[in-house]
Formats: sequence, structure tokens, C-alpha cells
Amino acid sequence: LPRIPATARRGTKGQVTVFCGASFGTSKDYVDGAREMGKIIGESGYSMLYGGGRCGLMGEVSGAAHDVNPATVVGIIPEFLRPTEGCEASYGHDITVDTMHERMQLLTHRSKAFIALPGGYGTLAELLEVITAKQLGQIDGDVRIGVLNINGFYDGLLAFFKQAEEAGFLRLKGGIHVVSEPTAERLWKSLCL
Amino acid sequence: LPRIPATARRGTKGQVTVFCGASFGTSKDYVDGAREMGKIIGESGYSMLYGGGRCGLMGEVSGAAHDVNPATVVGIIPEFLRPTEGCEASYGHDITVDTMHERMQLLTHRSKAFIALPGGYGTLAELLEVITAKQLGQIDGDVRIGVLNINGFYDGLLAFFKQAEEAGFLRLKGGIHVVSEPTAERLWKSLCL
Ligand SMILES: [Mg+2]
Repeated sequence: LPRIPATARRGTKGQVTVFCGASFGTSKDYVDGAREMGKIIGESGYSMLYGGGRCGLMGEVSGAAHDVNPATVVGIIPEFLRPTEGCEASYGHDITVDTMHERMQLLTHRSKAFIALPGGYGTLAELLEVITAKQLGQIDGDVRIGVLNINGFYDGLLAFFKQAEEAGFLRLKGGIHVVSEPTAERLWKSLCL
Repeated sequence: LPRIPATARRGTKGQVTVFCGASFGTSKDYVDGAREMGKIIGESGYSMLYGGGRCGLMGEVSGAAHDVNPATVVGIIPEFLRPTEGCEASYGHDITVDTMHERMQLLTHRSKAFIALPGGYGTLAELLEVITAKQLGQIDGDVRIGVLNINGFYDGLLAFFKQAEEAGFLRLKGGIHVVSEPTAERLWKSLCL
């Protein structure tokens, strides 16, 4: 596997991984929230790892972090998804891997927190994968997992988790805690990094 | 990677993969639905691939298929999850792999359909992963994906997908179709295998 570049490791407090959609969404609030999240991470002393490219919210969150601290942004993308149709290379360091699995390995290897912005099936798959990995002890128990719940985007998913708990298939109390906040500033505080 | 055993390949119509929880749930309806699904798959001429072991619904769905056609049930489990605490070896063929990723590779390599019964974070991660893989063209466009929506278990998730579409992050119309039915019989019919 490629390595996370030195300037995104040395002198940083660690790495934070952002999952989000390659769309902009139907409200300006999504872009604004993504940019705010990127700015906060850029100013935090943590590096940002993300899925690469500049499409939709991926470009907004990484671009905003890059504006603050370009050396600490790392985009990781599988070869077959190399940007097309007007989306360009990653902000910051641009790392190509062979497969989706390699991408997740790099995105999850050392991150101290995982933040999901609004997104589609891919974002949801990544969020559920890290929740499951934490539950199975495959990533460290101290890792934080949170969602930026702009305009209540994730309300339905969080309600579904509650229903699944009532149905006896999932454990929230004493299980994996997913932080949810409606603004980037509150989410960052609640992650307690 | 290990191979799917010959008796689960030759003479079958193909393979169907079942994702589900290692719990029983808080209503007998979940067990009944899982057993019905297992029986239908066992009688269908398709092999059943599943995540191994005998815990909760995993044991119910695979046990019911195994009652009908033992040679066509294949459980695939990563070494670190080898059953403990009273759960035993897989029904049918019992294949051990090294990692969760290898498990998914085997579970997804050739299956013609993916069926998610009620489950927890792990089941949801698997369901979202195959939806995403189909969307990206990493699994065949002809592959069916469905959920056994016992007692409305998946209503909340499906509603969330609709909200995500309205928010502009996910495409249902013209996107990946996830079949949802409340009974095993109706789900099997709706998958049109
Ligand atoms: Mg995965």
C-alpha cells in the first residue's frame, strides 16, 4: 500500500477521515456545512484523509481544509474512479490505489476519527463499515465516529438504528456511539479530540 | 482465496448470498421469516452462501436451507470470528478465511442475488457494500438485491434512502433498485430469479 505522505503525518496531531457524497445536494446548507467542517479540520492540527477528487461535497470539504493547510490534506482514490467529467485531482496529496478495499485500508489505518457528511450509498457503506470495524475491535476502541447532520440529513438513519435496537438486532446503549450534530463546530467539539 | 465447494456449484442454478444478524430479534416473526427464507432457497436449486456459524438468524436461515439441501449451503467466516460462546460451526460447508474483506470477496464473487434479513450494523454494512458495488459496476448489473422486510424492519432505512434522494445525494429512480417484501415467498418471487 502507498504511505500517507510525511507532511500529513509529522507535526500533526493525527489523522481524521471524512466520508461524504460526490454530489452537492439540493440545498446550499450542505456546501456551507462541508466548507465549515473542512476549515475546522484544517485549523485543528489534524490531517484530513478523504476519498479523493473534487466532486461535490468531497471537493468542498477538502478544498476548505486545503485553503488553511494544504500539506495536510490527502485524497485517496482507486484507479478505476480516477476523476472524469470535469472533476479533477484531489486537493492536497493525491494517492491512487488499486481497489476500493485498499482505499478503505488507507483511510482507516490510523485515523482517530471518522466523520460522515451527507452522501449517498457509498458514504453510507463507509460509515457502516467503520462502525462495524469498531464493534469487532478491528479499529481502536478510542476512535471517534460522527455524522454532520446538516438539515437533519441523518435523522432517518439514526431513527432506523433505534428501531433496529428495539427489534433486538443492534445495541446502542453500551454499543458503538455515533456522535451526531447539526453544525461542524458542534460536531468537532462533541468528538472530543 | 478458498473455492466454493463443487457440490455448491455444480448442478445448481447459481449462488444466492444471505446477509443477516447473529441475533434472534425480539419477535418470533424474525426466526419464522428466516426459516421460511432458508427453506425457499434450499428448494430453489440455488446454493446459499452466508457469513457462517449458527448464531441467531444466521443459524436459522442456513439451518432451514441445510434441512432441504445440505450440500448447497456454504458458511464463510473470518478466522478471528470463529464461533465462540455456544455458537457452532457453519451449517453445510464451513470455510475459514483470514479477513472480513476475503469473506466479502467470496460472498460476492459469483452470487446472482443478495438478500438481507434483519440484522445489525454488520448486516447493514454488507447490504450497503453490495448496493455500492453494483452502482460502481463492480458487480454485475443483473445481480438482484433485496431485503426481507419482516415486521417493517427495513421501513426506516428505505425511508431514509428516499430522504437522501430528496436531499440530492442518492438516486432511486434509475438507480440501484432494492427489492423489499415482508414475506420470504413474496421476496423470492419479486427477485425474479
Ligand atoms: Mg467494504
